This record gives sequence, structure tokens and C-alpha cells, in this order.
Amino acid sequence: MTDFNKTRAMFHLPEGVIYLDGNSLGPLPKAATARVKAMMADEWGEMLITGWNKAGWFMQPNRLGDRIGRLIGTPPGSVMVGDTLSIKVYQALAAALEMNPSRKIVLSDNGNFPSDLYMARGLIGSLQQGHVLEVVNPEAVDTRLRDDIAVLMLTQVDYRTGRMHDMAAITAKAQAMGIVVIWDLAHSAGAFALDVGGCGAEFAVGCTYKYLNGGPGAPAFIYVRPDLVDKVRPALSGWLGHEAPFDFDLNYRPGAGIMRMRVGTPPVIQMAALDAALDAWEGVDMGDLRTASVNLCEIFIEEVERLCPSLHLQSPRDAQMRGSQVSFGFEHGFATIQALAARGVIGDFRAPDTMRFGFTPLYISPDQVRRAAVVLADIVNSRAYEAPEFSQRGAVT
Amino acid sequence: MTDFNKTRAMFHLPEGVIYLDGNSLGPLPKAATARVKAMMADEWGEMLITGWNKAGWFMQPNRLGDRIGRLIGTPPGSVMVGDTLSIKVYQALAAALEMNPSRKIVLSDNGNFPSDLYMARGLIGSLQQGHVLEVVNPEAVDTRLRDDIAVLMLTQVDYRTGRMHDMAAITAKAQAMGIVVIWDLAHSAGAFALDVGGCGAEFAVGCTYKYLNGGPGAPAFIYVRPDLVDKVRPALSGWLGHEAPFDFDLNYRPGAGIMRMRVGTPPVIQMAALDAALDAWEGVDMGDLRTASVNLCEIFIEEVERLCPSLHLQSPRDAQMRGSQVSFGFEHGFATIQALAARGVIGDFRAPDTMRFGFTPLYISPDQVRRAAVVLADIVNSRAYEAPEFSQRGAVT
Repeated sequence: MTDFNKTRAMFHLPEGVIYLDGNSLGPLPKAATARVKAMMADEWGEMLITGWNKAGWFMQPNRLGDRIGRLIGTPPGSVMVGDTLSIKVYQALAAALEMNPSRKIVLSDNGNFPSDLYMARGLIGSLQQGHVLEVVNPEAVDTRLRDDIAVLMLTQVDYRTGRMHDMAAITAKAQAMGIVVIWDLAHSAGAFALDVGGCGAEFAVGCTYKYLNGGPGAPAFIYVRPDLVDKVRPALSGWLGHEAPFDFDLNYRPGAGIMRMRVGTPPVIQMAALDAALDAWEGVDMGDLRTASVNLCEIFIEEVERLCPSLHLQSPRDAQMRGSQVSFGFEHGFATIQALAARGVIGDFRAPDTMRFGFTPLYISPDQVRRAAVVLADIVNSRAYEAPEFSQRGAVT
Repeated sequence: MTDFNKTRAMFHLPEGVIYLDGNSLGPLPKAATARVKAMMADEWGEMLITGWNKAGWFMQPNRLGDRIGRLIGTPPGSVMVGDTLSIKVYQALAAALEMNPSRKIVLSDNGNFPSDLYMARGLIGSLQQGHVLEVVNPEAVDTRLRDDIAVLMLTQVDYRTGRMHDMAAITAKAQAMGIVVIWDLAHSAGAFALDVGGCGAEFAVGCTYKYLNGGPGAPAFIYVRPDLVDKVRPALSGWLGHEAPFDFDLNYRPGAGIMRMRVGTPPVIQMAALDAALDAWEGVDMGDLRTASVNLCEIFIEEVERLCPSLHLQSPRDAQMRGSQVSFGFEHGFATIQALAARGVIGDFRAPDTMRFGFTPLYISPDQVRRAAVVLADIVNSRAYEAPEFSQRGAVT
């Protein structure tokens, strides 16, 4: 059994705060500050350029990829860390389109994170090869799958509602029609057990600053199915993906396997923080995590609906169709999220009316979830959100 | 007058080390460790998601861009920090090619860093629009400029020899022929005074982990000429370059000006280190820096040639044609660089026979340069490089 008391002790959370926004940015793992300090002082400071070999910076993107691979169900050597999620989406899509040159449609849904759609539009605009991005409702993906589609590109968990696609079923159906599949695991990795390798998808990408707690701007990751990776032509063919970067060859020769998905120099300081963050996952059973996560979500839904019936559940009621977040719709949602923050409960808001709450057993307890529901109900029922200080709009993340 | 005693005190260098490889990776600025620790503990740890606004993470790529802009001669609001240099090269080239759609040749030279050439090949391979990358000798660039060239893409300072292109003259000649110009400033930014804005080039890119001392994997930067930037279609159209990222619009609308060159979530921890590193440049006059840099290079050339005539100068003898590094050719160069490191003098090696030494007045003194020349001469003249422990090859960076 996973000991969540032990994992909770591994995170720093400000006094009095109940943090239900780890689906946007995970909190600080206590070990990360010391790890980064040591990396800077003992490695950068003392080893200087030799740190690339002596301190192992060069292969750190691979090692971190393998650590993430354990959490998402992929074999060693199939995941590479680096860049940002948007860049990894671009890499995957550029490769996927070349695998299906006779088809021109990229299918996605409007629950995909907008940046994924933007990156697809940017790539399509560059290619000028007649590709089209088609965006449907999440519920319509299944029926839209046909053999005119080149690539299916989805975020498994809808960032708005927490609605979860059935990865195995959709992948199987799409692949039977010759469609190449890309999964974005931004709201999946570290949220529940995954079997990305087993589902057979060609590509998966994700970020590490949400449920994996790698810190603001932590690098992203990309998975390529091992039997395909050596056929992938990297569109972003940077020198660290070269077969022999230190030959300084004028021509590009892709590295073996997942090495070719590297681009430029990896962010060594960010990687030290991410490495410390991944320590919290040692000893965590992903089945236990899912059970605990569902429990937290169910407590929240039950308590909020009991105490505050005016709110409208936007997430699927069926836990099997939901990631590790719960969204409630409320016309005064923006001000309510501000009022919650003023009382130490951090969630976030997505226009037009969604209040989002992420549930992460690694550092959130059932008691905290109950308290958060009480505070939310009090704000809504007392109309505390009407106070003028809560209505001011800014850039909400 | 710039006080280089003061700047030298701002860097940590290991006891007994003379570091002549800051052209690969700058040393640790003493302030960086504390700055990063504070960012992690006080911002990430305490502000959590609200750090994007409260701690100013969101606009940090712009602020850092402006700080770099002062060093490279560009106006405020024209430089954006983020991603890696390879990604920034790709962004610039993708945009540049669209500005010159009737031409198909990308001209570069074999002194350009290989990753720039690889990224160009990757982009051309994706576009399938008949583009060709033509790579000539650095000396041949000038005569190869003709009106069939779409984009001229050069690294100003040759990473092998330190040979410097005349940025103003080449830009003017190329632009008179309708060629779009991209300068890679990897070995220029922080190495000497630049007038990137004044030369009129459309694009410039660079990294911050060499002469700017931002740390391993520090983010890159991109400059776009202000009168053009609003016409640039971003190929890497990530959400943080969107006009209104928090509208979560399904369609991409590029942000105003340089904002559109943002892609994904910026590396906040790396940016804290870079910000501390840039503090060392406050009060540094770039003219003084150049004078001091030339002085260090001249001392090294003079002493090495005097003490050790068997080495062959590969860098231009004319300081005006040289960046802030000096290269000597030597058939036993690899082993000699290892032998130097064993005696505390850090340079680096580039195949087949180049020993490179970077000179950075911010933390290198004339006395250190003289001592380094003595050690080098002793190793060469005594054939100390023949010791078996110095001949073993590994990945040298």
C-alpha cells in the first residue's frame, strides 16, 4: 500500500493553504531546492563544462524519460525529456503527418488544450500541403473517425471538465482505419495509471509541471513507439539528436531510437528540480494513486452538491470517465475563485464559467478536501463573492 | 571605466582553475545560487500558481530579452527569451523563408554551428517546397551573394576559429539583393559590442549559456526587426505567443510584436539563474569589454607563439576579424587539452586538430592568461600530452 502520509511530507505547502491547482502547477517538492542548489554549486560551479559528462547532464533527458515512462506505462528507452509541450506536440505531429502522406485531415477536439491546436495550425500553415485541422466536440470524436483522417491528436483529459477519453478504445479504432494517433498526457501523467505502451499509440507527449511537480517551466516529454522511432524523420533536427553530435558533421544523421527526438541543449537546472520531484513517485503504486484520487474527487463532489446545490457539476459523474480534477459551473465563478484564494483554497477559473479543482493524493488529504468544500459552500451561499475585491480581472493561469 | 576586478569577484571559479572555456559554458555567477533558491522557496513554494503574476514570471522572457538587447544593440521590446537556440533558429528561418517565397536557396557557411544547418535541413525536409541549403566556406560568402538567395543564415563568429563576419557589410550587401538575413550570435552576445539593430538584419538569435553565463541549458533568445515583426507568421505558434492566451480561443491570433515569438511555458528556474547572471553586466561598457578581450587574446597569442612555436594559429591574426576566442591547431590537440585540464587550465578541443580557448574579461585576468600560456607551452614542449591518460576519447563538449 502506498503511504500518502509519507508523500505529503515530501511537499512544501504554504501555511493554511489547501492547494487544489496542482493540475496547473504542482507544489514545491522539499528536496528540489537542495537538489538544485547542489547541482548549481557542486556541478556547474565546480565541474564547469565537464559537468556534461562527469555529472551526467548529457544523458539526464533519457534518465528522466525512463523515470516518467514507469508512470505512463512505456518501456525504457522510449521517452525523451526536453523543450516545452508545445514543441513536443509539433515534433510528434510533423512526424505523424509524414507517416500518412496521402491523407490531409488532422482530427482533434475542442477539449484539446488550445496550444496543441495552435501548433497544428502553425505547422499546417508552413507545410502548404493541403492539410486541414478539424476540431469536433469530445463526444463526437468516436463517430468522426474515418479513413480520410491522417492523424488523431487528442489530450486524453479535457482541461476544462476533466472528461477522459478512452485511450485504448479510441486508439484501437483509429489505428484500424490507418490513422496515426498522438496522445497529449498533460492532465494524465501522474494523475492516474496509464498504459501508453500497451495501447499501441504511435506518439504521446506531456508536461511535467502539473501532476509531476517539476516546477514552473519544467521540460516536457515525448514518447515514440519503439518499433517506429527509427523510421521517424525529425522535423526539429537539432544537434543533440544527431547520431554523433561531437563529430560536428555538416549533414544531419538522426540518432538511434528516441535520441533523435532531442533538439537543443537541455535545461540542466530545471532537470535537477524535476529529478527531485520524481523521487516522490518512488514507492507510489499507480493503482493506489487512482483509488485515492477518485476518493478525493468523490468527497468533493458529494460535499459541494450537498452544501451548495446551486453549483452545476461540469465533470463526468462517472469516475471512470474523469481524470483527477472536478469542475463546477457557476456564473460568478471568477469572483468565487478569488474569494476562495483569499481564504486559502486555491483552485482556478476557465472562462466562461468553470471553476476547476485538481485532486492530488500525493499532497492533498480527504480532510482538506472536506474543508475546501465547506469554504466554497460558505462563499457561494453567503454571496461573499460579491465583494468588490474579488471581481477584478487579471491574467488568470 | 569598467571595473573588471569587481566583475571577477562576482563569479565562482574552482580553486586553481584557469577557465578558458566560457565560450562553451560560462561559470557560475555567485548570485545565481541564492537567486534560484529564493525563486524556488519564496515564489514557487509560497505563491504557487499565482507566481505567474505576483512574481512576474509571465513577463520575465520579455524583461530578460530587454536586458540582453542592451548588450547586442537592439531596441526595447524587440528580443524574446525562450526555448533553445536550435528552436529559435527554426523560428527565424521558417519566418524568413515565407518573407521570400519566390526564392529557394538558403545560404550558410561551414563555420556556422552544425545545429543551425541541421535545423535548416529539417525544416526544408518538412516544407517540400524545393528549398536547398547551400553551405560554402566562410571566405566565400561575400562572393556567393546573388539575387537567387532567399535567406542568408550565418553565425557571426566561427565556433572553430573565432573568425568574425563583418555583420554590417554582409547584411547591407545581402539586403541590397533582396536576401533576408539571420545572424546567430552564439559566440557574439557578451563577447563584444554589437549593433544588431543598426545593421538592419531581419532576425538574430543567440544563446545565453556561453558569454552571458546563464548556466547549462539556459534559454535562448530571438530578435526580430521591429518594423517587420507584426508581419511575421509564427511557424511555432504556441499559446504563450497568442494575442490573448487566457481566452483559450480555438484559433491562433499572433500576439503583438515580439510576443508572438513565444511558444510554450518558459523555464522559470533557468530564467532566475539567467537574471542573476545578467546582473554582472550592469556597469560593463561593451567598448571596455572589447578592449580587454582583445588584450587577453593578444597576450595569449603572443606568449604561446613565443614559448611554443610548433603550434599553428588558426584564428585570424587581425583582432578586428576575431571574436573573443583563440584557436591553435596541433595534431596532438586532443591529448594536450586533457593534459591542460589536469593542470587546471580548461580549454576545449574540436576535431580534427583545433584547441580552442575563450577569453572573457568578466572573470579572466591578464595574469591568468600568461600562466595558461606557460602551462600550455610546458605540456607541448615536454610532450606531456603523450602520457597515456590523456589520449582516451570521450564525449568532449
